[in-house]
Amino acid sequence: MTEQVKEQVKEQVKEIVAAFASRLDGRDWSGLAELLHADVVYEVPQTRERIRGRDRYVTFNREYPGDWRIDPVLILGDERDGSLLFRWNVGDDEQMAIAYFEVDDGLITKITDFWPDPYEPPTGREHLTERW
Amino acid sequence: MTEQVKEQVKEQVKEIVAAFASRLDGRDWSGLAELLHADVVYEVPQTRERIRGRDRYVTFNREYPGDWRIDPVLILGDERDGSLLFRWNVGDDEQMAIAYFEVDDGLITKITDFWPDPYEPPTGREHLTERW
Repeated sequence: MTEQVKEQVKEQVKEIVAAFASRLDGRDWSGLAELLHADVVYEVPQTRERIRGRDRYVTFNREYPGDWRIDPVLILGDERDGSLLFRWNVGDDEQMAIAYFEVDDGLITKITDFWPDPYEPPTGREHLTERW
Repeated sequence: MTEQVKEQVKEQVKEIVAAFASRLDGRDWSGLAELLHADVVYEVPQTRERIRGRDRYVTFNREYPGDWRIDPVLILGDERDGSLLFRWNVGDDEQMAIAYFEVDDGLITKITDFWPDPYEPPTGREHLTERW
């Protein structure tokens, strides 16, 4: 790849991630499917769950309960990988989450979804920290 | 910024994130401090902890118990923001974590550290998922 082509591919990866967030938030299931490779793999490291294939992954999102919304905070990308930092909320419940994407030839082939739950801090560092 | 300067700054942000990971893993405290703005702010969304200032943040890491290691998996960046996906392990315990960085004029001004704990999946999606 020349430097110019690399730069175009990077921009394309970021645009695909932005489109993913927007179509998911908008329940645009056919538009979402257009961004995904037929053999896309979706993984959730916290629960060790994996979903194989575009149709099952779209179904997973379509069936996901609640009036959830996705609000992108930051999108980063290079020629192959993209990441989405986003606020996710349903009703009064809001949390930050992170998704990583692998993109090949304009299609998402892998999604890794980190859903970090809140927890209490370990003791022994209160002399350095404040809480919010 | 011209496109060329933008590209250089992007590369610099990624290099700073790589140096952060390497110096932290190597317990190079003075080298780590050189990457940080004096007023750097460190936040942990899961525990709602915040540490203000370079000296306290370096102390926090220096005092962090265990023979922990940091192994970068993916570094992404643009002109201002960087992200580090990494494996963190101490003994037999290994987890993936994500840190985000804001960089201004070659120094890290903000670090947001996501430490996602494992948990059991919600029910109702077993027809789509497999576990690992």
